[in-house]
Amino acid sequence: MSQSAPDLSHHLSKEARERLPNPMKDIWRRVVSSGRLDVANMANGDPHYSLFPFKQLVFEVPSVTEAQDPVAEWRAGTCPTQSFRSYKDEDCALSLRNAFQYTHGAGLPQCQKVLKDLTDFFFAPPNHTVTLTLGNSDGITKLFRLLGDSGDYFLTDEFSFPGMTNAPLSCGIKWVGIKMDAGGIIPEEMEKILKNWDETKGRRPHVLYIVPVGQNPTGSTLSLERRQKIYCMAQKWDLLILEDDPYYFLQYDLPPAEKIPEVEGTYSQRFAKHLIPTILSLDVDGRVLRVDSFSKILAPGMRLGWITSNKLFHKKLVTYTDSGTQHPHGFGQAFITEMLGEKGWHLDGLCRWLQSLRLDYKRRRDFLLEMFRREVEPTGYATVNIPQGGMFVWMEVHFERHPHYRPGLRDATSSAVAPRTNIETLLLALFEKCMENDVVVMPSSIFSIPEDSMWIGNDNQHVPIRDRTKFFRATFAGTEENIEKGMVRFGRTLKDFFEQPMTVNL
Amino acid sequence: MSQSAPDLSHHLSKEARERLPNPMKDIWRRVVSSGRLDVANMANGDPHYSLFPFKQLVFEVPSVTEAQDPVAEWRAGTCPTQSFRSYKDEDCALSLRNAFQYTHGAGLPQCQKVLKDLTDFFFAPPNHTVTLTLGNSDGITKLFRLLGDSGDYFLTDEFSFPGMTNAPLSCGIKWVGIKMDAGGIIPEEMEKILKNWDETKGRRPHVLYIVPVGQNPTGSTLSLERRQKIYCMAQKWDLLILEDDPYYFLQYDLPPAEKIPEVEGTYSQRFAKHLIPTILSLDVDGRVLRVDSFSKILAPGMRLGWITSNKLFHKKLVTYTDSGTQHPHGFGQAFITEMLGEKGWHLDGLCRWLQSLRLDYKRRRDFLLEMFRREVEPTGYATVNIPQGGMFVWMEVHFERHPHYRPGLRDATSSAVAPRTNIETLLLALFEKCMENDVVVMPSSIFSIPEDSMWIGNDNQHVPIRDRTKFFRATFAGTEENIEKGMVRFGRTLKDFFEQPMTVNL
Repeated sequence: MSQSAPDLSHHLSKEARERLPNPMKDIWRRVVSSGRLDVANMANGDPHYSLFPFKQLVFEVPSVTEAQDPVAEWRAGTCPTQSFRSYKDEDCALSLRNAFQYTHGAGLPQCQKVLKDLTDFFFAPPNHTVTLTLGNSDGITKLFRLLGDSGDYFLTDEFSFPGMTNAPLSCGIKWVGIKMDAGGIIPEEMEKILKNWDETKGRRPHVLYIVPVGQNPTGSTLSLERRQKIYCMAQKWDLLILEDDPYYFLQYDLPPAEKIPEVEGTYSQRFAKHLIPTILSLDVDGRVLRVDSFSKILAPGMRLGWITSNKLFHKKLVTYTDSGTQHPHGFGQAFITEMLGEKGWHLDGLCRWLQSLRLDYKRRRDFLLEMFRREVEPTGYATVNIPQGGMFVWMEVHFERHPHYRPGLRDATSSAVAPRTNIETLLLALFEKCMENDVVVMPSSIFSIPEDSMWIGNDNQHVPIRDRTKFFRATFAGTEENIEKGMVRFGRTLKDFFEQPMTVNL
Repeated sequence: MSQSAPDLSHHLSKEARERLPNPMKDIWRRVVSSGRLDVANMANGDPHYSLFPFKQLVFEVPSVTEAQDPVAEWRAGTCPTQSFRSYKDEDCALSLRNAFQYTHGAGLPQCQKVLKDLTDFFFAPPNHTVTLTLGNSDGITKLFRLLGDSGDYFLTDEFSFPGMTNAPLSCGIKWVGIKMDAGGIIPEEMEKILKNWDETKGRRPHVLYIVPVGQNPTGSTLSLERRQKIYCMAQKWDLLILEDDPYYFLQYDLPPAEKIPEVEGTYSQRFAKHLIPTILSLDVDGRVLRVDSFSKILAPGMRLGWITSNKLFHKKLVTYTDSGTQHPHGFGQAFITEMLGEKGWHLDGLCRWLQSLRLDYKRRRDFLLEMFRREVEPTGYATVNIPQGGMFVWMEVHFERHPHYRPGLRDATSSAVAPRTNIETLLLALFEKCMENDVVVMPSSIFSIPEDSMWIGNDNQHVPIRDRTKFFRATFAGTEENIEKGMVRFGRTLKDFFEQPMTVNL
């Protein structure tokens, strides 16, 4: 944040503004900050660490420096291993005495520090603070509560992961989808919504929630140019940006870290060199709240991530965490601190794992695309975008070529924006056909943000999202066997669906 | 729940009623329940387990069967150890392939099963279901959201832990404190509140939140008779009971498990024999939601606990968890499943640890009481209750003996119930004196639920809580050295405070 950073406190929800901290923490803080050395503290009901039944934790993991391509060798069972150890009574990066005690909602200082260092190294945000979370789902839903009041509208990608976008609906928050193309949300479409907003009908959206790399479900990645435009617009319209970026380190079309001729220095510097700048890195105002996770790069069951934000939101997040989930578990904090510490992988080692992991996913992606080209494209009924990151491809089906395709439907009675075609019906019929043929792909209707005439306005050019919901999301996170089988069956199902339409039950 | 169990769905908050599940889960469920064996599932974005960088986790813990008094030996450093191991590729109670994958909000079936078995063994609730949580703070605050709407009043102990009771305030939920004596809340006082409730001023309370064993801060434990009365009243007034019971296994005045002559059978049967029945065990209607935790019996940093409830609330909790925190971390689920499994401590071993732990805390409690009798009681200015469980003593200070004590104050302008004495002022002055003298004890004013004339009514007999806030909470969770020092200083401070009143700054 610059010296002249704006006051953003008006973005806080009523709940966040009214939340009281635990008054006991003030007393504990007074004790700690008093500097007195011989205090008999009978105030805290913390079990004594000598009662924690853990002598040590051992995490046996791949030895990333001994392997050439650690992920490939790990999968083949040939990768040597190393162990990170956390002790209760011996020296280590984060003693189990602390890891297993109650602590601050932001996490233990040692773990917060290694994550802050990682954040500074990759994203270099000006004057931000790190708050630990229990993974991105926890982090994002906490941010929704922190910023949203009932009746608010939040902006997001018009195709979005419903596990997240459904979450704040029951708190009275509504979504406004921003039109997307292969490159993600279109900044000009966002500006149109903000400019034409009728404030008599509701507060203009003040929050934008996006997944900028390998977006779920479309697989799109926002270019630097779009990021800059979006950030400028956020400044102009006083938006906060929730940058949910679990796939950031899974960017595929970059030169390998080893072979970047213009970069000297450490492995991590070479690895970081060509990663796209995050929106957080552009943030001079403190209006970006970035949400990071280990779920996609280590394992989902880690349930540990972190939010990078300005100090105001950090403080409010901690107060919320202290009277909600509480701080993350000691197991994960011990693991992360050890993993990023001097005796662990350290940042360089993590980057070796990430480099190898992104190669692995790139191979999977390329394999899926190859199978698509072999099994699906020749039918002429579907095309695919090449995702630059993440785990998903977004396959477009050309329903307008289907014998049962009907343009020109219209339902003028609904306040929601009515479809004009039967594309959604065809989509769901094709989905059922796929299920019958033992291939499961996700229909785009599950991800589409419903439109409301309130914010679409009287734009006659506007094609309703239900007429554009002609996609399936497929993942390349699975095995090659699964991917090949899936594409063979998807291609065959498409052929049946388009060429034997009598068997389609609409 | 009996066959005729009442429908309790009207207790759900608006938010809980309106919460949408993730629609993708329906599709995943269809795939799983289809029974088809050769499905190419490209729908889930789950990283493949072969990419999880964990070969094994080792938890080195005390060997509870080799030790006579495992906790004492553990603290002395003489206890032998054993290791629980979780593997990705080898056989174990909960494979890391599953532990580190995304899973159901209720937790992994293996972990849910061992906790259900434990629950059935100790509490034998009729027809309840277990939902994992991230510890009691997470569990309780989730229940507050599940059941409370803005404007609701919840009942609780009149002295309560503000870390919990502050949590729902910002959602518009207000607390009504129930008068307590040394045995906890007084059932007749609860009935008085419910009977006299003026529904024109707000919905009659429909939730009771209590800590029935070693209550924080008063240390009180509800007798079986009170439990039965409270449960009957809950049936009569259609209350739900949130039974937050982290200290259940820390009950001190029971015969040791080894020496119960009338009990044959396993160690765990002997251990369980004299534990007081939980309120959950009395629950024929499904109106008790019990919240259990490992924080006080293993370590707070576990951040893993469970809620036992009827199926309706279980289902709603899972939907909330799926679109919030998500399921608990794999580390803890692996540990618990292994610990309670065939190769782990098993239930018998856990009971050996608990028996030894409660002996340790009993020794600490008795040591504090001994120090109190030696250092504080002789001053004549304070007395103490003997807590039957938990970690806290509640020390009553006889402020009416203080030269500056003033009865007869009254502030008729406030809608809150005004104090008549200056006890609260004296309490805080004494607290400051203690801080100056390097002993920290928690003043009861921090725990007291503010009273409102709305629900106290015109009862002239009622002594405002601010005139009864004459207690300090002290913990015996610390070391003997700390306890002794604390009691010496507390006694000396009391003497100074009462006998050199000129130095008291009021």
